[in-house]
Amino acid sequence: MNPDIKEKFKLPSRHEAGVYNVWIEFTQLAATTKCLNLGQGFPDYDPPSKFSNFLAEVATEKNSYFNQYTRGFGHVRLVKALSNLYSTLLNRKIDPMNEILVTVGAYEALYCVIQSNIEIGDEAIIIEPFYDCYEPMIRTAGGTPRFIPLRNTKPNAKVSHSSDWKLDPEELASLFNAKTKLIIINTPHNPLGKVFDYEELNMIADLAKKHNVLVISDEVYEWLVYEPTKHIRIASLPGMWERTITIGSAGKTFSMTGWKLGWAYGPDYLIKNACVVHQTAIYTCATTVQEAVARGFEHEISVLNTSDSYFQNMSKELKPKMLYLSNVLQENGFTPVIPDGGYFMISNWTKFENKLDLSSETDKYKDFRFVKWFSKNAKLQGIPFSAFYSEKHKFMAEDYLRFCFFKRDETLKKAENILSSWTKNISESKSKI
Amino acid sequence: MNPDIKEKFKLPSRHEAGVYNVWIEFTQLAATTKCLNLGQGFPDYDPPSKFSNFLAEVATEKNSYFNQYTRGFGHVRLVKALSNLYSTLLNRKIDPMNEILVTVGAYEALYCVIQSNIEIGDEAIIIEPFYDCYEPMIRTAGGTPRFIPLRNTKPNAKVSHSSDWKLDPEELASLFNAKTKLIIINTPHNPLGKVFDYEELNMIADLAKKHNVLVISDEVYEWLVYEPTKHIRIASLPGMWERTITIGSAGKTFSMTGWKLGWAYGPDYLIKNACVVHQTAIYTCATTVQEAVARGFEHEISVLNTSDSYFQNMSKELKPKMLYLSNVLQENGFTPVIPDGGYFMISNWTKFENKLDLSSETDKYKDFRFVKWFSKNAKLQGIPFSAFYSEKHKFMAEDYLRFCFFKRDETLKKAENILSSWTKNISESKSKI
Repeated sequence: MNPDIKEKFKLPSRHEAGVYNVWIEFTQLAATTKCLNLGQGFPDYDPPSKFSNFLAEVATEKNSYFNQYTRGFGHVRLVKALSNLYSTLLNRKIDPMNEILVTVGAYEALYCVIQSNIEIGDEAIIIEPFYDCYEPMIRTAGGTPRFIPLRNTKPNAKVSHSSDWKLDPEELASLFNAKTKLIIINTPHNPLGKVFDYEELNMIADLAKKHNVLVISDEVYEWLVYEPTKHIRIASLPGMWERTITIGSAGKTFSMTGWKLGWAYGPDYLIKNACVVHQTAIYTCATTVQEAVARGFEHEISVLNTSDSYFQNMSKELKPKMLYLSNVLQENGFTPVIPDGGYFMISNWTKFENKLDLSSETDKYKDFRFVKWFSKNAKLQGIPFSAFYSEKHKFMAEDYLRFCFFKRDETLKKAENILSSWTKNISESKSKI
Repeated sequence: MNPDIKEKFKLPSRHEAGVYNVWIEFTQLAATTKCLNLGQGFPDYDPPSKFSNFLAEVATEKNSYFNQYTRGFGHVRLVKALSNLYSTLLNRKIDPMNEILVTVGAYEALYCVIQSNIEIGDEAIIIEPFYDCYEPMIRTAGGTPRFIPLRNTKPNAKVSHSSDWKLDPEELASLFNAKTKLIIINTPHNPLGKVFDYEELNMIADLAKKHNVLVISDEVYEWLVYEPTKHIRIASLPGMWERTITIGSAGKTFSMTGWKLGWAYGPDYLIKNACVVHQTAIYTCATTVQEAVARGFEHEISVLNTSDSYFQNMSKELKPKMLYLSNVLQENGFTPVIPDGGYFMISNWTKFENKLDLSSETDKYKDFRFVKWFSKNAKLQGIPFSAFYSEKHKFMAEDYLRFCFFKRDETLKKAENILSSWTKNISESKSKI
């Protein structure tokens, strides 16, 4: 082989921020250790057949064009359904053809919105913890992320709640400057489960308006909020529509993460630019999936405030699972942070720290060492919490790991068995472990 | 509204090359004129139910995870099927886990490969005519495209063939220099239908090896070749595997353009970099579609050299359509270029030039004026050929337009009726038209 090939075709430096990926590392680990995996965020049981039947129906419908190309910025029936839904929820008419872009998951929506706004040298504010892709998306576009952590205002509480994790308003204000192009918020929040309340959103909105900054609101868990908490869309706050792009996900909304369909909505002059990036990178999303999601939405819109609404029932289905995992964790020496939304729970594991010898693991941060050790030795896997923090702030997150509780009751029961026998072992033979 | 918003959130300049899109313009035109649309490349009849049934089956399979996330760089069953197929075709073992990336259509594969290779200032050679996305993909990555047209070596032939369109070897050699990072070839070729022969590929391969340049080989129409022509994969030429990324498409392979699934294969050190861009932009493709495509490939591999092979039968199904359209065009005053592959045919329309008043159309290039006028007045639509050329060379392409013949026989018959009554009208009342 020509020795110059690898040298000449090395990755352009702007893409280096995208090389490491926590999901790949921990998915591979779970496969290797054959552990019970509560790491990734998807159900381990069949999603509602109502929605998967739509896809089957669409794929085989005679004399349709559902297996061929459709409109690049979104299949017409789908953008109309999205417009119907969000026009109602936001109490303003959303133009299906100019104010919505359909994407390959919320992930591609984030990519297009960030790529179409970040100029080299721009700054973007990211609230920690954060869904890990925000950072490489900003860096590969030439931007500089500025990080601000949510701070646990009740660090010593016996039972901790995601709502205790708050932004310091002054600290946030100090990050805004003339270079600030955008801020990303995520509510309901992954991995914390925090649902931002009106006051918090209003504080962010005021800063965004004052400094003429774009708000990207990642609301993929919008239907997964536990009563009595309510989800508030920042785009609905006074003066915020004009500077907000909101991102949603069919994968999260219909529990079909494998469909990889999402969307962004906002004012036409912002969506138009995201469309340009989408057009260069992807051009159009799968028609078959879009038609199925459109039918799913039409169905859901027709039953929105009834007992048949999956959007309403999803959190009712998940709340007992959340409470169950929370109890299991507490009974076994972990301190969970009770979420108000989403399907993740973080949990403090440091009561075991002095009882464990993690020296077989070589990672820099102790939560990485613990999660890997735990996956190999206890056969239960989460995701290290510091994966959701910038390098500079990872030290703030090392006491926690994240579990997903959108799993069969049997799976959660298995997790309980693993945890209780492991903690029993630990107390019996400290020295050995 | 804050007047500074639009100014602050304008599209970053690097994305400007992606703003105009010919497909959007002409899809909208077809919808407005309600014409018979032979512009876009997809069948207007149901694709094989064998394959669409796989998708229906997968979507509703109980206790599967086919509606949830899968491996980011490609669903394992699919990359194994792709490895099986291409290992046979290239007569070398292709590693499913490291030498293949699954993408959102061939389109995203092109994007990832170009983004992961073009540094600012690099040059990329594009052969004209070219599938239009190549140019914005290179420009938005910071590269400079260098264009070289295929030249019609028999411009006065009564019946013209796509194989008459050739590269000038000296002209091609003159484009290579120290800045040249890659060359994109497309065989079978869209829109020309040219299938590059061994000698042509070898000439390109020699230049690529001499100048240490990457070859991106867009082979989405690999199964659509008309006998006795044979498709040759440039990656199979001596010394070329190590510097070639080949791109394929499930949409074209199974006639399911709406599934938007594609792939890139090549040596691990090249695929690895494309994976990084994929990971930042998309992360993973739809599992459901990937599992269905995997089953489609497994089926096709099992019948590859039999009369049940769709890959073999597709060109037999399309050849009569191609010949029919070619006859219709010739009988009505157009001069088509007979393709050796693909499902498009370009056709010279200039015999009508002096009989038409296109002054109602204001486009810069006369093929754009003709196609728009024709869509509105004759109610039949193609795509202007100069859409597939760089701005500098569009003048070379103005005499042609492109039609797609992957249509029902009735649709082609309708096109014949439109053309024959239109040409009759023209000869009867020149002055009126």
